[in-house]
Amino acid sequence: MPRHSGRAADQLRPIRITRSFTRHAEGSVLIAYGDTQVLCTASVEERGPAWKKDGGWVTAEYGMLPRATHTRGRREAAQGKQSGRTQEIQRLIGRSLRAVVDLSALAGYTITVDCDVLQADGGTRTASITGAYVALVDAVAAMRRKNQIKTNPIHGQVAAVSVGIHAGSPVLDLDYAEDSGCECDMNVVMNEAGHFIEVQGTAEGHAFRRDELNQLLDYAAKGIGELLAAQREALAG
Amino acid sequence: MPRHSGRAADQLRPIRITRSFTRHAEGSVLIAYGDTQVLCTASVEERGPAWKKDGGWVTAEYGMLPRATHTRGRREAAQGKQSGRTQEIQRLIGRSLRAVVDLSALAGYTITVDCDVLQADGGTRTASITGAYVALVDAVAAMRRKNQIKTNPIHGQVAAVSVGIHAGSPVLDLDYAEDSGCECDMNVVMNEAGHFIEVQGTAEGHAFRRDELNQLLDYAAKGIGELLAAQREALAG
Amino acid sequence: MPRHSGRAADQLRPIRITRSFTRHAEGSVLIAYGDTQVLCTASVEERGPAWKKDGGWVTAEYGMLPRATHTRGRREAAQGKQSGRTQEIQRLIGRSLRAVVDLSALAGYTITVDCDVLQADGGTRTASITGAYVALVDAVAAMRRKNQIKTNPIHGQVAAVSVGIHAGSPVLDLDYAEDSGCECDMNVVMNEAGHFIEVQGTAEGHAFRRDELNQLLDYAAKGIGELLAAQREALAG
Amino acid sequence: MPRHSGRAADQLRPIRITRSFTRHAEGSVLIAYGDTQVLCTASVEERGPAWKKDGGWVTAEYGMLPRATHTRGRREAAQGKQSGRTQEIQRLIGRSLRAVVDLSALAGYTITVDCDVLQADGGTRTASITGAYVALVDAVAAMRRKNQIKTNPIHGQVAAVSVGIHAGSPVLDLDYAEDSGCECDMNVVMNEAGHFIEVQGTAEGHAFRRDELNQLLDYAAKGIGELLAAQREALAG
Amino acid sequence: MPRHSGRAADQLRPIRITRSFTRHAEGSVLIAYGDTQVLCTASVEERGPAWKKDGGWVTAEYGMLPRATHTRGRREAAQGKQSGRTQEIQRLIGRSLRAVVDLSALAGYTITVDCDVLQADGGTRTASITGAYVALVDAVAAMRRKNQIKTNPIHGQVAAVSVGIHAGSPVLDLDYAEDSGCECDMNVVMNEAGHFIEVQGTAEGHAFRRDELNQLLDYAAKGIGELLAAQREALAG
Amino acid sequence: MPRHSGRAADQLRPIRITRSFTRHAEGSVLIAYGDTQVLCTASVEERGPAWKKDGGWVTAEYGMLPRATHTRGRREAAQGKQSGRTQEIQRLIGRSLRAVVDLSALAGYTITVDCDVLQADGGTRTASITGAYVALVDAVAAMRRKNQIKTNPIHGQVAAVSVGIHAGSPVLDLDYAEDSGCECDMNVVMNEAGHFIEVQGTAEGHAFRRDELNQLLDYAAKGIGELLAAQREALAG
Repeated sequence: MPRHSGRAADQLRPIRITRSFTRHAEGSVLIAYGDTQVLCTASVEERGPAWKKDGGWVTAEYGMLPRATHTRGRREAAQGKQSGRTQEIQRLIGRSLRAVVDLSALAGYTITVDCDVLQADGGTRTASITGAYVALVDAVAAMRRKNQIKTNPIHGQVAAVSVGIHAGSPVLDLDYAEDSGCECDMNVVMNEAGHFIEVQGTAEGHAFRRDELNQLLDYAAKGIGELLAAQREALAG
Repeated sequence: MPRHSGRAADQLRPIRITRSFTRHAEGSVLIAYGDTQVLCTASVEERGPAWKKDGGWVTAEYGMLPRATHTRGRREAAQGKQSGRTQEIQRLIGRSLRAVVDLSALAGYTITVDCDVLQADGGTRTASITGAYVALVDAVAAMRRKNQIKTNPIHGQVAAVSVGIHAGSPVLDLDYAEDSGCECDMNVVMNEAGHFIEVQGTAEGHAFRRDELNQLLDYAAKGIGELLAAQREALAG
Repeated sequence: MPRHSGRAADQLRPIRITRSFTRHAEGSVLIAYGDTQVLCTASVEERGPAWKKDGGWVTAEYGMLPRATHTRGRREAAQGKQSGRTQEIQRLIGRSLRAVVDLSALAGYTITVDCDVLQADGGTRTASITGAYVALVDAVAAMRRKNQIKTNPIHGQVAAVSVGIHAGSPVLDLDYAEDSGCECDMNVVMNEAGHFIEVQGTAEGHAFRRDELNQLLDYAAKGIGELLAAQREALAG
Repeated sequence: MPRHSGRAADQLRPIRITRSFTRHAEGSVLIAYGDTQVLCTASVEERGPAWKKDGGWVTAEYGMLPRATHTRGRREAAQGKQSGRTQEIQRLIGRSLRAVVDLSALAGYTITVDCDVLQADGGTRTASITGAYVALVDAVAAMRRKNQIKTNPIHGQVAAVSVGIHAGSPVLDLDYAEDSGCECDMNVVMNEAGHFIEVQGTAEGHAFRRDELNQLLDYAAKGIGELLAAQREALAG
Repeated sequence: MPRHSGRAADQLRPIRITRSFTRHAEGSVLIAYGDTQVLCTASVEERGPAWKKDGGWVTAEYGMLPRATHTRGRREAAQGKQSGRTQEIQRLIGRSLRAVVDLSALAGYTITVDCDVLQADGGTRTASITGAYVALVDAVAAMRRKNQIKTNPIHGQVAAVSVGIHAGSPVLDLDYAEDSGCECDMNVVMNEAGHFIEVQGTAEGHAFRRDELNQLLDYAAKGIGELLAAQREALAG
Repeated sequence: MPRHSGRAADQLRPIRITRSFTRHAEGSVLIAYGDTQVLCTASVEERGPAWKKDGGWVTAEYGMLPRATHTRGRREAAQGKQSGRTQEIQRLIGRSLRAVVDLSALAGYTITVDCDVLQADGGTRTASITGAYVALVDAVAAMRRKNQIKTNPIHGQVAAVSVGIHAGSPVLDLDYAEDSGCECDMNVVMNEAGHFIEVQGTAEGHAFRRDELNQLLDYAAKGIGELLAAQREALAG
C-alpha cells in the first residue's frame, strides 16, 4: 500500500536546514522535515550547573506554539505548567545532545538549546534533535572564536528520526497523518558511527514482533545516515 | 542628534507583512518592524466565552521565544507563570482588537490571536497589534467562506506604534537600543479614523510636558497612517 | 446631563487622607476618594534589590479585600495567583513612585508600599498612587530620623486621577457607576510641575478624538492640582 | 509577676465591635481586641456548596495585610499560595461558625466570612471568630429582610479567646509580646451555654499539667462570657 | 451501647510497632492502630534550618497514598498542592516531636520524619505521632553511632491518641466508622510525665460540656500510657 | 566479571508478588524485585474519561515515598509538582496496561492504578508495570463479581524488566548499584506472545551497537518470560 505522500517506505521527507535564522542566539537553526518546522536556538551562558561542582552543561527546552497544530492547543505558559509530553521530549533532546559532548571541556558554561515548533506535521521531537545538533555546533564555534573554551567539546554527531508500522507496513519518517493512524512508532537517535543513543518504541495499536523491530531499525539507520549528511552539508555551507 | 539607524525622527523602520506564514491557523501573519519579528496566528474555535451569555469573543495571547532577545530569558512555561509584563501586553492586544469588532456578530465563536515574538528589537507589542489585525481579518474571511457567520463583524481597522523621547528629541518607532535609553515612551493604538483606542505613556527618566505629549501624538498619528496603509496593501495582495 | 452624584464635570469627590492609620508600618495612610478607601502602608526593609548592584528600590503591591466590591470577588491568595489586572496596577503604582525618587540615595534599602483596597467605588488605582506617595514620604522621614539615609531621596510629588467620557461628556474622577458605563477612561499620573508621569487611556466603547483627549487632560490637570494640595495639607498636619 | 500591660491575669484587653464598617457586605464588622484589629465581612451568595446536595454552607477565609505585623510579611497572593497557618485558621473559623448554624435552613445559599487582619497584636484568630459571628448575624438579618430564608438558621452564639502560661502564670487574652514569650497557649471557642466548640492547646516551651489546663479553661470561660456580652451589646446597638 | 468492634469504651485497638521496616532510612517504623497503618521514616540530613542561625531542626511531612482510604482520593502531588488538612497534620506532628527534643544538641542537622499512610481506618495523625517518635529515637541512635552528635537530644517520650463522643458516650481510639459518626473528637498528645503537649478538640455535632471534656482527657491519659509502654517495648526489642 | 550480587548475567532478582496487601482497593499488590518494593493498587471509579465520548479508561499514577531511596528526596506534593521523571514513568505504566485492555468493554468506568514505591533499589518502573498488571486483573475480577462489566476487557498479559550494559557486559534486571554505574540501560515491556509493547533504551555513557541491542533484547525476553510466569502463579494462588 503506497504512502499518501507518494514517498517510498524508506524515504525521508524533504529536509531543509537553515542556519542563522534569527540574530541574537549563538546558534540559530530552522529545520524542516517536510511541513514540520522547528526553530532551534543555542544560547551560551556563563554559569555552570548549580547541582554539579565540575564541568559545564548542555540542556534543552521544547515548546510548541499554540497554533503550530491543526487545532489550537492551550499555551503552556498560560496553563502554568509544562505537560508530561513536553518534559519527556525536552529530556530526550538534552540527553541526546549530551551523548556527543565532553561536558568537562565546557567547564563554567551552560548551553541551552530551545526547540520551538513553529509548524507541526509529525516528527517534531526528532527534527528538534537533528536541528539542535547543528545549533549546538554553531554555538560552540562562537565560543571558540571568543576563546571561552580551548578544545572542541563535541566528539560526535547525532541525528534522529521516527519509524513506525502504518497500515501493516514499516515506514520511515512519519508525517502527522501517518503518525495518527500508526499502530506503533519508534523514535531512534543515532550517532555518526551508527550506534544507538536512544531507542523509544511504543506500541499503541498492537505489539510489534522482533522481526518488525529489526526492519524498523534498518529504516531508521538509513534515514539517520541521510540526516547526518544533511547536517554536514549545512555546516559546510 | 541623528538616530543611530540614520532614520528621520518621524520615520518607521521597514515594515513587512507576510500572510499565510504557517499552514494550520485560519489567519497566520509574520510581521516585521525592522528586526522585530512577530508571528501572529488567529484561531477560530466554536465556543462562546464561558462568562457571557451572548455574543462571541476575541482574545489574544502573547509570548516571546526564550532567545528572541539579546540574552536568553527564562521560558514562562517552565517558570509556571506568565510575567506581569506578558499579561499586560496580551490584555492590551485583546482590547485593541475588540475595539474594531462587533462581538454579537461572532456569536458562538471565539477567535484567539497568538502573538509570538521570534526576534525582538523593540516595539514587540505594537507590531503584535498591527499584525494581529491582519490575521484577524484573514480568520474572519475564512469563517465567512465556511458560512459560520453571516455578516462581517469587523467594523474598523487598527494599528499601533511606539513613540518616545530619546536623547531629548521625540522619535517614532523606537528600536531596542533607543528604547533602552529612552526617557519616556508611549504606545499608541489608533483606528482608521485617526481616533485613539489606547494611549499608554510612561516616563521612565523624567516626566514629559504637554507640548512633548502633543508632538509624540503627532508622530504616532503619522506612523499609524503608514501602518494602516501597509495592512491594506498586504490584505489586497 | 448632570452627574448622578450632583458633582460638576470637573469636580473631585471628597478627598480624605488619614496618616498613621495603623501602628507598625513606617508610613500608614488611609486615603478616601469618596467611598473608595485604600490603606497604603510603606515598609522599609534593609535589603537592596537582588537584581541590581547599586542603589535601593521602591516597589508596590496592590490587593483588594474580597468584599471591597459590590459582589464578593475571589481571594487571590486562595486562587494561587494575582490577576493580570492586579499586576498591571501594582506595576503602575511602583513606576509612578519611582518617578519622584532618587534610588541611589536609598542604597541598601527597599521600600514596599502595600495598597489594599478596603472599599471600592471606582478609581482605586489612582487613589492608591496618591495615598502611597504620602505613606512614602512618612517612611522616608522615619528613615531620616533613624539616620538610615543622609539625604532626602524624594525629589518630587506625585498624584493621580481618572478621567473619562460618560454619557458623551468628559468627567473627572469617575465613581463605580460612572466607570461601568464609561465609553473610554484614562488614568493620569502627574507631578507637581504639571508634567506627565503616566497616561493610560483606553477606549472601551468608542475611540476618542484628539480634542476629547485634550479636554480629558485638562480635567486631569485640574484634579491633580487639587490632590497635590490635599497631600501637602495632610503632610503639614 | 504583673503583666506588662498592667492587666490582671484574667482580664481581657479593651474590646470594640463596630458594625457596618464597610458598605457593600451584608455584614461588615471591625473588631478590636486591644491593638489587634480584624475586618470581618459576611457575603451572601446564591449558590449551594458544590459537593453537597442539600442545605447551604458557611465558610471563612482569613488573611493578613502584609504590614499588619511588626515586620512586613510576604503577600500570600504574590507567593501563589496560602500558608499552612492561614489554612489552619480559616478552617477553624469556619468550623466554629457552623457549630451554631443550622445549614439546612440556609439551603441554596453560601455565606463566606472574610476575616482580614488590618493590625496584629496577638489573638487574631480568636478576634476573627468573635467578630465573624456578629457579621454573620447581620448577614442573616439581611437575608431575612429580603425573604431569602424563612427561619433563623443561627441557633447559638459563639466567641473565642486565647489563654496561655506566661512567665509561669496563666493569663487571659495574650497580646503579641506575651504570645511570643509564651510556654504554651490555647485557643478556646465556646458557645453561650458555656460548652466547648474548639479547644486547641499547644505546648511550645514545656508540657502543661492537668491542673494548669483546668485553670486555663476557667480563665477562658470567664473571658468568653464577657465577649458574648460584648457581642450582644453590639448587636443591640 | 457497645462499640461495633466489641471494644470497651476505654480500650485501644491492637497496636503493632515494627522497626526497620524499610532499609534506607535512619529510622523506619511501621505502626498499626488496628487497620490504620502508617510508615514513619526518619531521615537525617547534614544541614541546619535555613531560617535559624543555631541549633538543628526536627520536622515532619505527612501523606496518604491515594487508595489508603475507602474511595480513592486525588494524589496531592498531581493536584500540585497539599491540602489544608495535610499541612495541619504535619505541623502537628512536627510540633509534638520537637516538644521532646533539645534542638541545640542537634546543631547542624535536620531530621525529617515522613509519615505516609498505607491504609487508613481513623486516627492516622495520632498513629503518625506515636510511630514517628520511635523512628526518631532510632535515627538519633544512628547519629550517635556515627558520632554525629555527642549527647542525646531526646529528653522525653511522646505518644498520641484520639478520643471522642460517639452515640452519646465517650470512647477511646476511634476507628473510621466511629469517627465519621462522631459528635465531637479530640486528639491528645502527651509525654511520659502525663503532661499535655497538644489538645485539639473539635465539636462537629454538638458542643461538649466541661465534664465530658474531663472524661475524654481521662480516657486519653489511659490510652497514651499504654502507647508509651508499647513504644518502650518496641525499642527494647 | 561477576555481578556484585553473585547473580548470573541473565538472572532476575528474587520476585515476590503479594496480593490483597491493603484492604480498600479493588486490586492491591505488593511486588518486590529484590529490595525494590512497590505497592500497586487498582481503584475502580464509575466515571468515564472526560475527554472521550465512548469507552472506559485505564490510567496510572506513580510516586516514590521520600525516603524510599538512599538519601531523602523532596516530597512532590510539597514541591507543588510532579517531576518530569515521574510523569514519564506514569505515562509509560498507563500505556503498557492499556496495550492489553479493550477499553470499550470498560465503558463508563475508569481504573486508576497507583504505583507507590516503598523501597527503591533499581527497576522501580518495570516492577510497577509487572505489579500493576496483577492489581488490574484483581480489580477487573471485582468488577465482574459486581456485574459492572459483562466481558473481560483484559486480552493479554504484560510484564517489564530492565536490561543494560554494566562493566562492558549485558546484564538483566539491574539493581541500583548496577544502574548507577551503567553505560546504557533499556526498559522493555512485552506481552505473553513475546511481542514488544515498549522499548526504551538510553545510552548514558557510550552509544550501543546493534549486536549489543540484540543481546539485551534476548535477555529481556528471557526475564519477562519468567515474570509472566510469576504473575500467573500469583493469580492462581
